Amino acid sequence: MVRPGGRSARVQEAVHAAVRQLEAEAGRTALTVPAIAAKAGVTPSTIYRRWGDLRELLSDVAVERLRPEAPPEDHGGLAEDLRAWAGQFLEEMSSPPGRAYIRDALLGDPDGTNAGQCSAYAAEQVDVILARAAARGEPAPDVETVLDRVVAPIMYRILFRPGSLDAGYPARLVAEVIPAR
Amino acid sequence: MVRPGGRSARVQEAVHAAVRQLEAEAGRTALTVPAIAAKAGVTPSTIYRRWGDLRELLSDVAVERLRPEAPPEDHGGLAEDLRAWAGQFLEEMSSPPGRAYIRDALLGDPDGTNAGQCSAYAAEQVDVILARAAARGEPAPDVETVLDRVVAPIMYRILFRPGSLDAGYPARLVAEVIPAR
Repeated sequence: MVRPGGRSARVQEAVHAAVRQLEAEAGRTALTVPAIAAKAGVTPSTIYRRWGDLRELLSDVAVERLRPEAPPEDHGGLAEDLRAWAGQFLEEMSSPPGRAYIRDALLGDPDGTNAGQCSAYAAEQVDVILARAAARGEPAPDVETVLDRVVAPIMYRILFRPGSLDAGYPARLVAEVIPAR
Repeated sequence: MVRPGGRSARVQEAVHAAVRQLEAEAGRTALTVPAIAAKAGVTPSTIYRRWGDLRELLSDVAVERLRPEAPPEDHGGLAEDLRAWAGQFLEEMSSPPGRAYIRDALLGDPDGTNAGQCSAYAAEQVDVILARAAARGEPAPDVETVLDRVVAPIMYRILFRPGSLDAGYPARLVAEVIPAR
């Protein structure tokens, strides 16, 4: 029923933009369905019909914001590429906005689609790095191993053990997952 | 200002019990501050003063429910003990109530205390298993390694990739973390 690029896509874009603007102008507490609807030029019932409630809308907006903006940097080698990416991943996800987005994404997500999308973004970035390594003829672990051994421990500490995060942590995890040459 | 075992502890116990009873009797949507207060025999303002809001109260209740009820089973060997514990951890945390408690614990937790407590429970259980291994003279990884390599990947899949969980996953993670004999 949803035509990509049609009215439905325009409503989504207007509502997402309204959330971002309202939050930037007036802070988190300004985010109510009536205020967002007024800013987006739609009725509150349009929002309720499409998103169910505010929490689900905020989850969708958060996932959009967690979408990587560019492919991972190419430093010419697997270890360097993975270290740079994991360091940036930690930095972004553990920042106050990053934590808020992860929280929002997990919360208003009854069917797990948005959480799955967060993980898919990480997997896509790792895939690019591993494909480059393969093209260079470097031995490389598979995506699942990098998710288990690098992405998961970083995310676990961000969510459950913020006190045990340090800037050298991603590099230590990467060193353990790269095959010896 | 809080006397352990005094009025403060009694209020906490009455309010936690009211949450559990109301939820069991009437479901999640019945959980409002006025209904909880009435059941617990306190005023709503007592709840607001102590917990801030419903979400923080539910986070505290969730952490109480995530507290392990017994030390991990002793199967006579490190690999067996860790496999049994990790399998049970996956089963409990990925069950519908387990997921709801993790969610609640993370959500109403502005300072990260409750999320940290969830992780501390897991670390304590792992500690018991590793101490038994040491007492038997078995080589064993340290707690941090088990958190990174077994607990974190399980929790990451529960939260972000529920589709990729299978019953054999904990045993595979454990096999990779136990030193060869």
